[in-house]
Amino acid sequence: VKISEYEIDLEEAVKTINKKNFKRVLLQIPEGLKVHVSSFVDYIEKNTKAEVIISANPCFGACDIAYYELNELDVDFLIHIGHTSIPELGKQKNVMFLNARSELDVTKVLEKAIPLLKAKKIGIVSTAQHAHKLEQVKTILRNKGFETFIGKGDSRIKLEGQILGCDFSSARSISKEVEMFLFIGSGNFHPLGLQLSTDKKVIACDPYTHEVKSTEDLKEMVLRQRYGAIARAKSCRIFGILIGTKKGQQRIDLALTIKEKLSNAQKKSYLLALDYFSPSVLETFAVFDCFVSTACPRIAIDDYMQYKKPILTPVELDILLNYKKWEDYSFDEIS
Amino acid sequence: VKISEYEIDLEEAVKTINKKNFKRVLLQIPEGLKVHVSSFVDYIEKNTKAEVIISANPCFGACDIAYYELNELDVDFLIHIGHTSIPELGKQKNVMFLNARSELDVTKVLEKAIPLLKAKKIGIVSTAQHAHKLEQVKTILRNKGFETFIGKGDSRIKLEGQILGCDFSSARSISKEVEMFLFIGSGNFHPLGLQLSTDKKVIACDPYTHEVKSTEDLKEMVLRQRYGAIARAKSCRIFGILIGTKKGQQRIDLALTIKEKLSNAQKKSYLLALDYFSPSVLETFAVFDCFVSTACPRIAIDDYMQYKKPILTPVELDILLNYKKWEDYSFDEIS
Repeated sequence: VKISEYEIDLEEAVKTINKKNFKRVLLQIPEGLKVHVSSFVDYIEKNTKAEVIISANPCFGACDIAYYELNELDVDFLIHIGHTSIPELGKQKNVMFLNARSELDVTKVLEKAIPLLKAKKIGIVSTAQHAHKLEQVKTILRNKGFETFIGKGDSRIKLEGQILGCDFSSARSISKEVEMFLFIGSGNFHPLGLQLSTDKKVIACDPYTHEVKSTEDLKEMVLRQRYGAIARAKSCRIFGILIGTKKGQQRIDLALTIKEKLSNAQKKSYLLALDYFSPSVLETFAVFDCFVSTACPRIAIDDYMQYKKPILTPVELDILLNYKKWEDYSFDEIS
Repeated sequence: VKISEYEIDLEEAVKTINKKNFKRVLLQIPEGLKVHVSSFVDYIEKNTKAEVIISANPCFGACDIAYYELNELDVDFLIHIGHTSIPELGKQKNVMFLNARSELDVTKVLEKAIPLLKAKKIGIVSTAQHAHKLEQVKTILRNKGFETFIGKGDSRIKLEGQILGCDFSSARSISKEVEMFLFIGSGNFHPLGLQLSTDKKVIACDPYTHEVKSTEDLKEMVLRQRYGAIARAKSCRIFGILIGTKKGQQRIDLALTIKEKLSNAQKKSYLLALDYFSPSVLETFAVFDCFVSTACPRIAIDDYMQYKKPILTPVELDILLNYKKWEDYSFDEIS
């Protein structure tokens, strides 16, 4: 089914619902597609006899699977739209992931990017939405005389050349062979993480805005912010250690290690489990001077400006406590 | 243990943790007490060997029990602070509810209220925080020549004379015998619901602010707002039906009934399951013209001004669809 510029295999979901005679279906939709929610439901209701409940909670990734609703609302089947599954979380019973494959043309923005690719060996990466376009990108680049590389990720990664905001392993798997990376997709966070994680130059191509840019300046700005956050945290005495409770974000052992490190450094700390992070939720905890987040890495970095108190990543806490040097700064990844 | 003006039986929790040798404990604290979170954790850590994780998700009532975290984070024991259990949800394994009993004096504000009690037979009600003061209130009123009544609630109510924002059964159990109600507690929502649910005059005594007031004006204002919300919803074509997923808020059957009623009235509707309600979450769903909430009644009524689109209670939808007359308006209760 085509919804907006995305091809989504709702036919497959409908087939399963009818075959297994599912009565109640839960639908998880990422934020960007929620505006089309009625198209999804109408299609399923038209082609099956199932009753559809929309999970209205914010959903940002495949790390977030609505198991609680699945159990509590007597749901037979969960359709998770817009993300590929995270293989290491295991085969999920009665959960179907349906990627939203963007049909946007990537060739025009690619043409704009080519003059910026000042190297011969190019690693190409993308997010789930555009990963099926990487073969086309590869062919075009090869015809222009580039050598191209598409990597394979670790156990959190489903598609070739795919990266997540918390996992750049598919890029790292080829980073020794390539001179720079070409990223196909939108937003700043993925190409920034790509650069910080591989330490290679990145050209980001946005098929939505047709913007092409190097992430060099962004990297400098974010590193300055992170240095500032670590510096501000130096004088903090009471730390809140954030544990994300979403299935694919849970890093409890890491949180416990951090608590011990803080304790050894004579800093008091508390463990906070949280499903959905927002500035207003953290502001309720006035007693904490700053936070360390073991949940989604975006919270600390991408939402930096929204939070009044510093939120450090585990890597940044290691720098603060002298387990690691600033020169060895690395991006927080879940794996 | 005394924390701020509240007496909370953390000793009992500590006893259980030590007796059962619990290793990991989860702490749920209502919004008003989150500022004291470190006192709770410090006390438990000092008196047990358990590791304490704070549930940082917003928590507004005993309807909201952190089962998901209990399971996902391998927690042995959940301490839910500040609310009494909801008996009809059943005895919860490894969950302890610890009421926060306010030690604030109620006698002074009661003296201010007495001249406003222009009747002989008075029903006295309160929230969990002050319910233990009702005997004292009763004695004082009796000494002044009043006849006093304290009701018993239904299966959602733990204490005598206690009301919840979604359950006024303890007041209704005595409303035929009394001429007016005296409410001990803070905020507008409980006394408003009390008046709408019993159709008796209510004098509200706030032991925090020492404010004493009749809810008559508030009732008129809120009823005007509700009439306005129903009127605005008349022209709406696409309805979102909200289902609260918190344990004590789930009313799926009611949501399904509402869907059918809307369908019979040629209105399109969709079922939305949601844990935590906020204006920004509902604004994502641009396609819906208005909402009907089967979750916590406060969302529709108390937070009226925050939402751009009308949110109706199930009772109000019945008025909209002519199942009920405006004259028979009643407050939404979960039971």
